[in-house]
Amino acid sequence: MALVSGGLDSAVATAIARNDGHDVIALTFDYGQRHRIELEAARRVSVSLGVARQIVAHLDLDLVGGSALTDEIDVPKNRPLIDSEAEIPITYVPARNLIFLSYAVALAEVHQASQIVLGVNAVDYSGYPDCRPGFIEAFQRCAAMATRVGVEGNAVRVTAPLMEMNKSQIIRRGLDLGVDFSLTHSCYDPDESGLACGYCDACLLRKQGFASAGAPDPTRYVAGVS
Amino acid sequence: MALVSGGLDSAVATAIARNDGHDVIALTFDYGQRHRIELEAARRVSVSLGVARQIVAHLDLDLVGGSALTDEIDVPKNRPLIDSEAEIPITYVPARNLIFLSYAVALAEVHQASQIVLGVNAVDYSGYPDCRPGFIEAFQRCAAMATRVGVEGNAVRVTAPLMEMNKSQIIRRGLDLGVDFSLTHSCYDPDESGLACGYCDACLLRKQGFASAGAPDPTRYVAGVS
Repeated sequence: MALVSGGLDSAVATAIARNDGHDVIALTFDYGQRHRIELEAARRVSVSLGVARQIVAHLDLDLVGGSALTDEIDVPKNRPLIDSEAEIPITYVPARNLIFLSYAVALAEVHQASQIVLGVNAVDYSGYPDCRPGFIEAFQRCAAMATRVGVEGNAVRVTAPLMEMNKSQIIRRGLDLGVDFSLTHSCYDPDESGLACGYCDACLLRKQGFASAGAPDPTRYVAGVS
Repeated sequence: MALVSGGLDSAVATAIARNDGHDVIALTFDYGQRHRIELEAARRVSVSLGVARQIVAHLDLDLVGGSALTDEIDVPKNRPLIDSEAEIPITYVPARNLIFLSYAVALAEVHQASQIVLGVNAVDYSGYPDCRPGFIEAFQRCAAMATRVGVEGNAVRVTAPLMEMNKSQIIRRGLDLGVDFSLTHSCYDPDESGLACGYCDACLLRKQGFASAGAPDPTRYVAGVS
């Protein structure tokens, strides 16, 4: 089972799992994200990577709020990219990966999936606490104690194949595996037609990644941005 | 913040938190449980315990399925009560407490609650893996790494004040604190008007608990059961 958000990282993580010979169930969360274009991207990515099926799970994170990704808070633009130990950005959604992974563990047990593949990485990840290796390890220990399969000695494994890669390495690996990045969406603040803003953290990281990888950036930006 | 299910245990855990002087936000999950009467009980219990507010969070666990509590699977009746290391019953919902607690941690961060109070107990708990002390400890470590407050050194604490108590002790403690158990609901298989079946695991444990506590059982059972 792979968490597919519609973004670049989860597409590459899923492509790696497919390339390793795994049948993959794509799991996408519809959590009321402002950038709904992500959900369409997740569908296209799942189809293009030949997953066995895609499950879209509805999660009501409106109550959690407090984030520029779900609330009407301005997404920061054109700020210096922060390093991995820096402050947590306003786009942080409290405990989001914890909630997503908990749900994924339940679904993995039901669908007898032995592994959950996650596209997080600790290098270019914009300071989210629940993208760190320590969190993934702690979660796995916890999940093993929360489930029937875990108690029976067959705990679902959580793997984050991109954890030690930077954006440029992720893009190169994706290109090697034939990932069509034009299907993916990263921007936190797209316009109504889905064009990327070019200046939020996600756009800046993505642009920098394609530049460092020496690969053309297939992203469609709003007029005047390249 | 206290998880209030409408059952007996969470009512007593919440009463303990209130008695300790805490302002309490009651958090109730509407996850499509078959026994919807629980939700009404959760509301009544929250009001009677004087919580600051009750939040009802909708969680779509239909996809998870595989349980007699959400699916159309017969609830086992009148079987011997199993001990705490025994097999996991059919009423097990995969990773349910993990999902509930993950969501609670996010809400606790948003509402600046320092603590999550949970009514689980490892003595009479019918074999659910995610009610064990090891799970609670592992979850707390994991949650501390998943949240802003955790990273900042103020991780939400998860407390399970009933963990080492049996049903009889829980009932006695609740009576000492003035909990009105007639407002609570335990039965896994109530009739349409909300009367308890008297023979599912939850009814048997509850009946036995009142008997051992030497207290009258205020539960309203279907005709012919006492």
